[in-house]
Amino acid sequence: MKHALDKQALSQLFFDAHSYNRFTDQTVSDETIRDLYELLKWAPTSMNSQPARYVFVRSPQARERLLPALIASNAEKTRNAPLTVIVAADSVFYEHLSSQFKAYDATPMFTGNAALAESTAFRNSSLQGAYLIMAARALGLDAGAMSGFDATKVNAEFFPDSRWKANFIVNLGYGATEGGHHPRGPRLAFEQVARIE
Amino acid sequence: MKHALDKQALSQLFFDAHSYNRFTDQTVSDETIRDLYELLKWAPTSMNSQPARYVFVRSPQARERLLPALIASNAEKTRNAPLTVIVAADSVFYEHLSSQFKAYDATPMFTGNAALAESTAFRNSSLQGAYLIMAARALGLDAGAMSGFDATKVNAEFFPDSRWKANFIVNLGYGATEGGHHPRGPRLAFEQVARIE
Repeated sequence: MKHALDKQALSQLFFDAHSYNRFTDQTVSDETIRDLYELLKWAPTSMNSQPARYVFVRSPQARERLLPALIASNAEKTRNAPLTVIVAADSVFYEHLSSQFKAYDATPMFTGNAALAESTAFRNSSLQGAYLIMAARALGLDAGAMSGFDATKVNAEFFPDSRWKANFIVNLGYGATEGGHHPRGPRLAFEQVARIE
Repeated sequence: MKHALDKQALSQLFFDAHSYNRFTDQTVSDETIRDLYELLKWAPTSMNSQPARYVFVRSPQARERLLPALIASNAEKTRNAPLTVIVAADSVFYEHLSSQFKAYDATPMFTGNAALAESTAFRNSSLQGAYLIMAARALGLDAGAMSGFDATKVNAEFFPDSRWKANFIVNLGYGATEGGHHPRGPRLAFEQVARIE
C-alpha cells in the first residue's frame, strides 16, 4: 500500500508553491528540459492520446518572436524568464493512436468527428500542461502559467502549418527569492465547490 | 533553492503510477476527500478563477444514477470503485472573481464574452482535474480517469439547474494489487512532441 508523500514534498508541490513572475538568471539546461518531459509523459491522457506538444522557448531570438503576442503584463513576466513553454495541442493527434493505444482501433472515432477531436485535444493538452507544472515543481523548478496572449499570433509565428495550436504558456526557471511572486490569493471553500453524494 | 523530490516520490507521482480499473474494497473517508481538496486547491488557475466543481459519488444510490451515463467499459470500471469524482466546470465561475482575484476587476471580461468564459472554464477545470489526479497520487490514492460518458445525461441527472457542466470523471481508491491496471502503453518520444528554440 502506498502512503502520502512527506510534508516537505506536499509543500513543494502544493502547499507552499507559488506562480512565479520573476526568476533568477539561472538557465534551464537541455538535460532538465528532457528530464521534465520524461517525468510528465507518464501521466494519463484519454486513450493514451497525448495530444500536447511543447515548444521550449529559450533563445533571445525565439523569445523576441513570442513577446509581441502576449498581453503587456504577461510580456513583462516573460521577457526575463529563462525558459517559456508554449503548450500546444496537435490537432491531428489521433494519427499516433495506432502505435500508442492498442486496445482497439480508436482512430475512426476522431477522423469522423471533428468536434470530439477538438474537445479531446483541448481537454487532454490542458491536463498535460497541468502535469508539466506539477512535474516542474517535483524537479525543483518554479512555474508561472499564463493564458493572456493572442493565440492567432502565436500560431502564425510558431505553427505556420496550422497543425499545432497554442493552448497556454508556462514560464519556467528558478524563482527569485525577493519579489518573485505576489502574495497568494484565497481559495474557494470545499462547501462552495464540492459535494459528497 | 528547491531540489528534486526523491526517487520514491517521483515514482509514486509519475514513473510507477498507473490508471487503475479495479480497486480494493477500502472506502475513501470524508477526511481523505477533504484532504484531497485542501491539497489540490492550491494549484494555479488563470486569474485564480478556480472554475472546477466536484461531485464525490460514493453512495450506492448516487452511483446507480451515474452508471447509465457511462459507456460500457467505463461503467464496468466504475461499478465497484469506492469513489468516483465528477469533475465539472461552473459556467458562471466568474461570479467569484471579485473575492478571489483582487488585482483588478476581471468580471466584465467574462460577462461580456461567452466564448472566453467557456474556454476559460474548460481549460482551467481540466487543469484542476489533473491537479486532482496528482494530489490523489501524492496522498497515496490511485486514480483512473475517464471521458467516455454521455455528458448530457450526467448533467441532467446531477446538475439540473445547468450551471455546472461535467468535464470528465475520475475513479479514486486503493488500487487492486492483482489485475488493478493494464500494462502501460508506450509514450511519444521527446522529438515527436517537442522542440527547443
